[in-house]
Amino acid sequence: MKIVTVGTGMIVEEFIKAAKQVNTVEIIGSYSRSLDRAKEFSAKMGIVKSYDSLSTLVDDEDVDAIYIASPNSLHFMQAKYFLENHKHVILEKPIMSKVENAKVLLDLAKKNNLFIFEAISNIHTPNFEVIKENISKLGNIKMVQANYSQYSSRFDLFKAGEVPNVFNPAFSGGSLLDLNIYNIQLIYHLFGLPKDSTYFPNIMKGIDTSGILVMDYGEFKAFAVGAKDSASPSYFTVQGDEGFITATGPTNELPNLHLKTKDEEFKVDHNTKHRLYWEIEVFGDIFARKDYDLAYKKFEESIEVLGILEKSWKQNNLGFEDRTE
Amino acid sequence: MKIVTVGTGMIVEEFIKAAKQVNTVEIIGSYSRSLDRAKEFSAKMGIVKSYDSLSTLVDDEDVDAIYIASPNSLHFMQAKYFLENHKHVILEKPIMSKVENAKVLLDLAKKNNLFIFEAISNIHTPNFEVIKENISKLGNIKMVQANYSQYSSRFDLFKAGEVPNVFNPAFSGGSLLDLNIYNIQLIYHLFGLPKDSTYFPNIMKGIDTSGILVMDYGEFKAFAVGAKDSASPSYFTVQGDEGFITATGPTNELPNLHLKTKDEEFKVDHNTKHRLYWEIEVFGDIFARKDYDLAYKKFEESIEVLGILEKSWKQNNLGFEDRTE
Repeated sequence: MKIVTVGTGMIVEEFIKAAKQVNTVEIIGSYSRSLDRAKEFSAKMGIVKSYDSLSTLVDDEDVDAIYIASPNSLHFMQAKYFLENHKHVILEKPIMSKVENAKVLLDLAKKNNLFIFEAISNIHTPNFEVIKENISKLGNIKMVQANYSQYSSRFDLFKAGEVPNVFNPAFSGGSLLDLNIYNIQLIYHLFGLPKDSTYFPNIMKGIDTSGILVMDYGEFKAFAVGAKDSASPSYFTVQGDEGFITATGPTNELPNLHLKTKDEEFKVDHNTKHRLYWEIEVFGDIFARKDYDLAYKKFEESIEVLGILEKSWKQNNLGFEDRTE
Repeated sequence: MKIVTVGTGMIVEEFIKAAKQVNTVEIIGSYSRSLDRAKEFSAKMGIVKSYDSLSTLVDDEDVDAIYIASPNSLHFMQAKYFLENHKHVILEKPIMSKVENAKVLLDLAKKNNLFIFEAISNIHTPNFEVIKENISKLGNIKMVQANYSQYSSRFDLFKAGEVPNVFNPAFSGGSLLDLNIYNIQLIYHLFGLPKDSTYFPNIMKGIDTSGILVMDYGEFKAFAVGAKDSASPSYFTVQGDEGFITATGPTNELPNLHLKTKDEEFKVDHNTKHRLYWEIEVFGDIFARKDYDLAYKKFEESIEVLGILEKSWKQNNLGFEDRTE
């Protein structure tokens, strides 16, 4: 799968570094609105092509797929353009702001026989497989705890009166969509949709800089904390009446597993490669096998997660949008 | 202060062990409804006197105070009896089920010029002092996280169909009043009453075996998890936009502090004595100094914490009561 990147932020650099380790994909170019910037970025990252024209990009038959890591509120219109012009799409998480728009894109992808993926790291890692394989040892699940609190250097600017993209409501920024989504993805991929959920955000200038999402699964409860305005030791823990398993560290990486039950205790960490390696490997594999069914099933799951997010921000009148022009 | 204990459970044994290290107090006897049991317990714990009659106990002029560690729903009527009969009272946490009854006891204590204390460990420890002394280094507080998940061996019996006291609604059992209270005490003693709070319990057979309390302080949020139906690594963390401080371990002990800010990082643990030593030292000191004002102020704080608890269980129709006969 030959990929061109859209966006020149840190996450794109990491995506390219990880992609270089995956045999089935190749990053062949980068796009920026400024050709100088695209060329500079491509040179820095060891990429051949550079684009500043979307029409040139979609006309390039060498290009299979576009990895979109622009501000969140631009994902929808950019992905729509690429799908309409017959390019596969990998959307950096969150896929977009609203479920209704995500469904439009899934329908469009199906109609045009194209792949559409959400780039989300933790659920594709070997450590998450270990959690899934061992969760039955925990007995009846009682509590799920997740915290991803990572201070954003942009918060200094935000407090000083600027509005960086990651804290800009117009770009669908904030801690829920940027960090807490990792926790919510983990919880959803273990337990599905909750019966109910309630989001308690800390809101500054119209954006949630941190917050707690409580998810009610009937027989048990889960919470997910995300914070960009403060740091603390992050973790992901599932506890049942026969034991617990916990990952200590940033939940986008899901490192350092520790399982403890009455009969067993172990500590392992199989996430030995770049944290984005695993998701890219999956996309490359699905693409090589032309497994559209699996891709669409996965994107439907992404839409369900987006539903949890959308409910959360709507509860708090955060009013995120997907730009259409 | 010469104390007689009421109750023969594990917490009473720990209270006596800790009290032996405090110069200003002395455990001179134990009470049980069965004289044999009282004698057996006194012998085991190295205590001189044994009582099976409450009237004999209150008539004993050697006795200054009664430490009450009976099931929670009996605290009120027992404490009322002792206060009416001119004995000081130390109530194991939670002081009782309902604020209105706690106010009755405080008025009675004031009227009879008696002390009334809540036995709560963590807020009296040196580590909690370290947290209070350093909290201003954390900048604007954004998130407070607390988890005390300790599997109760009685939960095996509970699942097998029995109803041990600690899971009995009639005795005001459950995770909120037994474990989560430690988290809530910490949060209250740092930040006072929240503007709002919402309790999400896991309820089995009418009792909360675990649950999440979310507390809204306007500018920041706090959550407190308590679980008796499952275990996980416990912690207490305060995070602000300039750093965090966290205690790793059971929140009734509050061990292993770790502070990290831009300018400073340290790990300390000053809780080097029995976890109940610190509270007993405070009670003995207040008693020796006859500092009624401080004692009543502290009990008013206990009543405010009880208000948070009562709101929580009432939100979920748990219907706890204080027995009056």
